[in-house]
Amino acid sequence: MKRAAIATIGNELLQGQILNANCQYIANQVQGFAMDIALAISLPDEIDAIANRLKPLFDEVDALLITGGLGPTLDDVTTEAIAKAAGLPLVQDEIELEKLKQKLSEKNLALNQYNLKQIFFPQGAAPLDNHLGTAPGFYLNLNGCHLFCLPGVPSEMKAIFQTQFIKTLEELCGRVAQKELIIKTINFSESGLTAQIVSSRIVQGYFWSSIPSAEGVSIKIRLKDFNAPENEVVRLKKAFSELLGDAIYGYDNQTLQETVKQLAVSRRFTIACAESCTGGFLGKTLTDMPGSSAFFLGGVVAYSDEIKTKLLHVRSETLELYGAVSEQCARTMAQRCQELFKADFAVSITGIAGPSGGSTEKPVGTVCFSLITKDKIITSYKRLFAGSREDIREKSVYHAMNYLRLAMMNHSVC
Amino acid sequence: MKRAAIATIGNELLQGQILNANCQYIANQVQGFAMDIALAISLPDEIDAIANRLKPLFDEVDALLITGGLGPTLDDVTTEAIAKAAGLPLVQDEIELEKLKQKLSEKNLALNQYNLKQIFFPQGAAPLDNHLGTAPGFYLNLNGCHLFCLPGVPSEMKAIFQTQFIKTLEELCGRVAQKELIIKTINFSESGLTAQIVSSRIVQGYFWSSIPSAEGVSIKIRLKDFNAPENEVVRLKKAFSELLGDAIYGYDNQTLQETVKQLAVSRRFTIACAESCTGGFLGKTLTDMPGSSAFFLGGVVAYSDEIKTKLLHVRSETLELYGAVSEQCARTMAQRCQELFKADFAVSITGIAGPSGGSTEKPVGTVCFSLITKDKIITSYKRLFAGSREDIREKSVYHAMNYLRLAMMNHSVC
Repeated sequence: MKRAAIATIGNELLQGQILNANCQYIANQVQGFAMDIALAISLPDEIDAIANRLKPLFDEVDALLITGGLGPTLDDVTTEAIAKAAGLPLVQDEIELEKLKQKLSEKNLALNQYNLKQIFFPQGAAPLDNHLGTAPGFYLNLNGCHLFCLPGVPSEMKAIFQTQFIKTLEELCGRVAQKELIIKTINFSESGLTAQIVSSRIVQGYFWSSIPSAEGVSIKIRLKDFNAPENEVVRLKKAFSELLGDAIYGYDNQTLQETVKQLAVSRRFTIACAESCTGGFLGKTLTDMPGSSAFFLGGVVAYSDEIKTKLLHVRSETLELYGAVSEQCARTMAQRCQELFKADFAVSITGIAGPSGGSTEKPVGTVCFSLITKDKIITSYKRLFAGSREDIREKSVYHAMNYLRLAMMNHSVC
Repeated sequence: MKRAAIATIGNELLQGQILNANCQYIANQVQGFAMDIALAISLPDEIDAIANRLKPLFDEVDALLITGGLGPTLDDVTTEAIAKAAGLPLVQDEIELEKLKQKLSEKNLALNQYNLKQIFFPQGAAPLDNHLGTAPGFYLNLNGCHLFCLPGVPSEMKAIFQTQFIKTLEELCGRVAQKELIIKTINFSESGLTAQIVSSRIVQGYFWSSIPSAEGVSIKIRLKDFNAPENEVVRLKKAFSELLGDAIYGYDNQTLQETVKQLAVSRRFTIACAESCTGGFLGKTLTDMPGSSAFFLGGVVAYSDEIKTKLLHVRSETLELYGAVSEQCARTMAQRCQELFKADFAVSITGIAGPSGGSTEKPVGTVCFSLITKDKIITSYKRLFAGSREDIREKSVYHAMNYLRLAMMNHSVC
């Protein structure tokens, strides 16, 4: 296995203004190759800070991916810092100068000291064409460490990554068929799932780990033969399936959304939803994927009790007797939603997302769900979720999606 | 200025499975203190990798914030790695043992070797109470380097951060009145905004930068006097306000959601929405904040054309003549939404989020909006957004929120 490091440059990363999506993108892309990411580092827009942290990595890793700080403004110092770390002078590239003049003239902009800075590179570097912006990236081979320096604008970074870096990765270490198998589960606690897996001994001898998220707990198993993983994968999937049954909703990068979509589309089911505390979050999640109009009809967000009564026909007696956060209310919401949308499956969510609004009887995190099937079989249940408002809403959305998944799975195909 | 480093531990970060939201959260929280983040590093779940990278930082920084790898499973090795780096033995904490037994018995779970691991700490460390999960964090003073080790589960990390780390930050370096001013704008391109700001010379002599996001472009200006910034802030805000007018929707950490909420709550306006391509994303965003029931009544997600006709009374002639993605359709959606919800303001979104479904006349990214005010004044407009399905949906949501903001701002208070 080759080893790589990712360095993302920019004060905005160290001041928490933006999420480091570039780092995730690069790490994710490298997964298909015989290369591991040994570390990822974020550094400020300061020449010495960048030079001093990156220099030791030149000897440590086979590839170094750097993004950010190639722009025209005064705080963009990455090129200078790399030249300093590598002990190389900066030289102007005549071909890139012509390209830059061309790009600027197309936009009726003048060449100035700021954009001129962008065509200086460490001696020996090969510029990497950036057809989306003015800042070219560059490639430098430092005694076998393949250094790629890319702009921080995500679309420009991705374009250069795909056209230039992937090629180098292929030459350097080659693709692998599959490095790991991920088993995605819902409705388990991390420690409970771990205990079950350990006592079953199905992954004995494997390096494996569990990753909790709002969607559920994922089990990640490092495969033994990256290049011919088929038998291993089949065997592991079978063993996990016997152990965990329908708590498994997918493998590898498959999301719960995708599973729900696949089930609905393949069985030609339609879905609608009635939401209260999630405010549209379930509808949003079901439509994150392209092609969701094939199964998703729409929903009602009944945030106020008046709307629950008016649009979803929840009786005021129900609200008075049981409250808006009750299985009774959830049932009417699901029923009326199915009628309104003429959907095969309708699911409802009503709960207390907090931070206020809880009581001893119904603490913050209490969420009721109901689902009605194509055959008009209606069920409901109540859950208590821990965490912040955001956590409770997110967990509610995934619970409702899983409710839909199980109902569709267990429903005979029409 | 004191210096801190953030270390986030977990293979999932280096394999691109999750976004590093913990790092952003911590970096953002530290902004209010006389402390800069010198670097942020992500490391795999490997004892030596963690120990070797962190050890040199003990002498370099005043505070080291570590998250992740405190869980009960075999790959959770952060505590062990820190003990190794610090040259300290691991010792069991009797008080935490009792707490753990208590927590497990409440959940009817048994004490096993996996969760028992979580109550071992480097000698001299003080456990940090985690009331949301089973893994306590811990604090260690290593010759003046304040090391905080927190669980990776975001809600648990945040809770311990707020109750324990903030106190240390206050003692260690104190709060600063304000390090920087952020001007948040919508409806500008980054280069267009930069050109305007440069030619206005209002930030000459300042270190400033621009940060683009789906919400708009933020301008960040490093202040000259952190401890008495009042006059500077007033002067800069006034200059920007004269330059950019109502394209500014907030300052510093204020989000567009908060601005909309503040306007609605202070003027006692109610809001409802009718969504198509965003599928509930606008309702979700408006209810992200606690207390949104004070102004948000609910919405209709009319993803299918049938529902647009049935629930929102869009005439089939309108759909045939102009299509579902038209200002005409958007207007009826907003109008009917206002009637249904009896809302003061109703806004609608209908568009083509892609990646398929576009045409020459209406390419992917075409989105129509309409808004009706308390006085029944209805307006609409069409936009063409670039980017992925996710980008288009996100930009649509922020546009609709800004539409609401401008309409409420310009509306006389009732």
